[in-house]
Amino acid sequence: MAKKPKHAISPLRSENYPEWYQQVIKAADLAEHSVVRGCMVIKPWGYAIWELVQRELDDQFKATGHMNAYFPLLIPLSHLEKEAEHVDGFAKECAVVTHHRLVPDEKGGLKPASPLDEPLVIRPTSETIIGESYAKWVQSYRDLPILINQWANVFRWEMRTRLFLRTSEFLWQEGHTVHATKDEAINETLKMLDVYADFAENHMAMPVIKGEKTSDERFPGAVNTYTIEALMQDGKALQAGTSHFLGQNFAKAAGIKFVDQNETEQIAWTTSWGVSTRLIGGLIMTHSDDDGLVLPPQIAPRHVAIIPIYRNDEDKTKVLEFCEQLRKELQDKSFGNRRVLVELDDRDFSGGVRTWQHIKKGVPIRLEIGPRDIANDSVFMGRRDDSTHKKNSVKRDEFLATVTGILGEIQTNLFQRAKSFRNESTQEITTFKDFEEFFSEKNSGGFALAPALDCQEIVEKTKPMKVTARCIPLEQSQPTGPCIFTGKETKTNILFARAY
Amino acid sequence: MAKKPKHAISPLRSENYPEWYQQVIKAADLAEHSVVRGCMVIKPWGYAIWELVQRELDDQFKATGHMNAYFPLLIPLSHLEKEAEHVDGFAKECAVVTHHRLVPDEKGGLKPASPLDEPLVIRPTSETIIGESYAKWVQSYRDLPILINQWANVFRWEMRTRLFLRTSEFLWQEGHTVHATKDEAINETLKMLDVYADFAENHMAMPVIKGEKTSDERFPGAVNTYTIEALMQDGKALQAGTSHFLGQNFAKAAGIKFVDQNETEQIAWTTSWGVSTRLIGGLIMTHSDDDGLVLPPQIAPRHVAIIPIYRNDEDKTKVLEFCEQLRKELQDKSFGNRRVLVELDDRDFSGGVRTWQHIKKGVPIRLEIGPRDIANDSVFMGRRDDSTHKKNSVKRDEFLATVTGILGEIQTNLFQRAKSFRNESTQEITTFKDFEEFFSEKNSGGFALAPALDCQEIVEKTKPMKVTARCIPLEQSQPTGPCIFTGKETKTNILFARAY
Repeated sequence: MAKKPKHAISPLRSENYPEWYQQVIKAADLAEHSVVRGCMVIKPWGYAIWELVQRELDDQFKATGHMNAYFPLLIPLSHLEKEAEHVDGFAKECAVVTHHRLVPDEKGGLKPASPLDEPLVIRPTSETIIGESYAKWVQSYRDLPILINQWANVFRWEMRTRLFLRTSEFLWQEGHTVHATKDEAINETLKMLDVYADFAENHMAMPVIKGEKTSDERFPGAVNTYTIEALMQDGKALQAGTSHFLGQNFAKAAGIKFVDQNETEQIAWTTSWGVSTRLIGGLIMTHSDDDGLVLPPQIAPRHVAIIPIYRNDEDKTKVLEFCEQLRKELQDKSFGNRRVLVELDDRDFSGGVRTWQHIKKGVPIRLEIGPRDIANDSVFMGRRDDSTHKKNSVKRDEFLATVTGILGEIQTNLFQRAKSFRNESTQEITTFKDFEEFFSEKNSGGFALAPALDCQEIVEKTKPMKVTARCIPLEQSQPTGPCIFTGKETKTNILFARAY
Repeated sequence: MAKKPKHAISPLRSENYPEWYQQVIKAADLAEHSVVRGCMVIKPWGYAIWELVQRELDDQFKATGHMNAYFPLLIPLSHLEKEAEHVDGFAKECAVVTHHRLVPDEKGGLKPASPLDEPLVIRPTSETIIGESYAKWVQSYRDLPILINQWANVFRWEMRTRLFLRTSEFLWQEGHTVHATKDEAINETLKMLDVYADFAENHMAMPVIKGEKTSDERFPGAVNTYTIEALMQDGKALQAGTSHFLGQNFAKAAGIKFVDQNETEQIAWTTSWGVSTRLIGGLIMTHSDDDGLVLPPQIAPRHVAIIPIYRNDEDKTKVLEFCEQLRKELQDKSFGNRRVLVELDDRDFSGGVRTWQHIKKGVPIRLEIGPRDIANDSVFMGRRDDSTHKKNSVKRDEFLATVTGILGEIQTNLFQRAKSFRNESTQEITTFKDFEEFFSEKNSGGFALAPALDCQEIVEKTKPMKVTARCIPLEQSQPTGPCIFTGKETKTNILFARAY
């Protein structure tokens, strides 16, 4: 057996992907499991990434005419019950508040005291409680459209959890809109899908395929669910964001009606759309390597880490002064719509320890700077998209002049790398036999694109293989043959994968 | 009886202050009660104000070295119980999750199915659950200080609620820090109090008095609670933000210990500090008038509303073009650290209706622009700090050149007006008789500053009058005599008021 290369993360991706994922999160100090079953603690570095997700998406929501608002955390049971399919979809995952007030118990502890007249459910999603408000707010066509988004925590009881990917409590945004016409609602649904796809590709450097969910995979109560699907490095798909055309289902259940221009009462059309902290799981699994997290500069809380290196006090003064000056000049530069963000890491650890921490945290550019570099008016630069961690001496002024370009290059590299991986891992399939073979190989994975009809037989035939239809891609080419599951003629190719 | 002046809000402040408050909120479309007992819906205009509060405070937290993180919504009962005083303080207000999963009931509805081994409490505040994490994170003096803030929703069961001021669920931030020494923790507590006071005065134009809470008014479990206290227009005080020095109480309960430079185990020192959506209640009650909300420009989601006025299509084209051009030029200007934000309100309502909506919503500057103004190359300007709503014709270029100055002037005016009101409503008291008189007059209110000792007698004597000690102001002058409650010598003056 060949000697293993030394890597920061153990096990390696190739050895045990799920455990590697946990270790990357730990090494980058992103999050951890809490004492509360199924809930996670999002630590500062992980939360800083979420803040960048929020800031950018929020700007996009506002640019597309939406405003934020806030609705109650708790939903009376009778309200949740109003949309039958919807409540069926979430009943198993509800956490239920049945009491308020605590009083002393027999053992010197506390126990719940006052039972509620009606139990309250912690929102698993807010269609029903927001619909309640909208029914009051909407009277006339003049009140439409309603374009509102909410940033909130939601709760879906989970037995098996995985940090960021599946936790009982998670943070998300949920857009909820009301429209006078079906077309307008469908346009909104697709517009927000585009916002998600642009964000995933241009900020997270995570290539996605936009598509419509097959009927079995729809959001409970929706007419159509649209999705962006990304491919992780282990060949599994991740549903990274969804946008739902809810038709009139929720409007009927909540009573969202309006009087149109002709004085006729109409039922409104609604949509909802959301992304969550799950995106951070996707980010980790798209770019990270065996030395830890790799962050696309657009979504990095710090772009540059400066690591001063010195052995005595005289050098220290000189080195810190040089580094501080460089930091100032760097922070005057912009990348995307943010300042270049710099951390000057002068903590009392060896240069090697500090360097490795920034590698594990995914900081795009590292600069090690010691007396010899200063004498040479240069910096010793390493790029996180280079997994060999090779460092190059670069003249200080040259670095300053090119830093924005380098960040852009890293951003592009990561996207291209992920896209190449996805393309190599995507196969066009024309027969069910090939389909079985594609998903049967040990450790195999990837996207299979096959002519197929959206029907119950897909579910029956793919379920035993633990494969699901990810979506009917919006971009379609002519199917090469009939549906591989039913043999019937079809006009669509459907994308399949194992999934998170 | 004299004829009432026509005002947008009914009743007037002078007639029924609590009802006036509700009506201002309704007229400005800030928030409303929800179907969920005690919970409110924060509507887009109200939430936009909260976003400005968040953005500015968040910048200040980061400038003072803090990072954000996120901890679980639910707290196992056994964790809440760890700090005895603390849990006593919150036991009555806890909402308790006792079940998960819903199953069909006999009547075709749903009922809670699976009881939990241990009940979970929706966080009323997060000291205990965050302490749990900190106990793991802190091992050595090198791990200190921990400077973390969380933006979150919390839940405190309330029987009598009032929008923004007192609701069961509310939004807030809670800072939680850990320090190696007592002094450092006290410095942190006071530093964050200063951040709150600066924000209240310079952004919300709400003058506040910084002080220490008397022992009876402390946060449950704290060693010292510091507060900023504001005076509302009805003479009642509002506690607008608090910062707690927790000593070693919570660190002992959670086991937050560290090994110091001398290899000795030490118990850490902690602080916590928070402000909430309650600030918006304070904002409303500080500045609003009988025509609705008045917003200080620093905290206004829109600075300028442009109201185009025309009667035919020919005029419409000309007027809209002029307004659109003006909007662009205005938005290129900055006020504080934001762009000047402009709404061009071309909705299909009369000019009068639109104008009144912007008045009720508190927009600092309104511009009505019609063909005659354009012919004159001028705009017709009204300022929200002028309660007569007088409008002046101003040359377009002059307005553009002075808009930033006008916004600054409005900001200053509102602060000075509120400060004058507070000064006029504050009285120095030297005897208990005068104290009784100050608070006995019908409809009276205001701050009473009196020589007093922080002792139980204060509580006993003020409680029947529904008056509370608001704080021991940090800025003290020599007391004019002995404690008005006990006759004992004292070195402090204490501030009293009726309060929200």
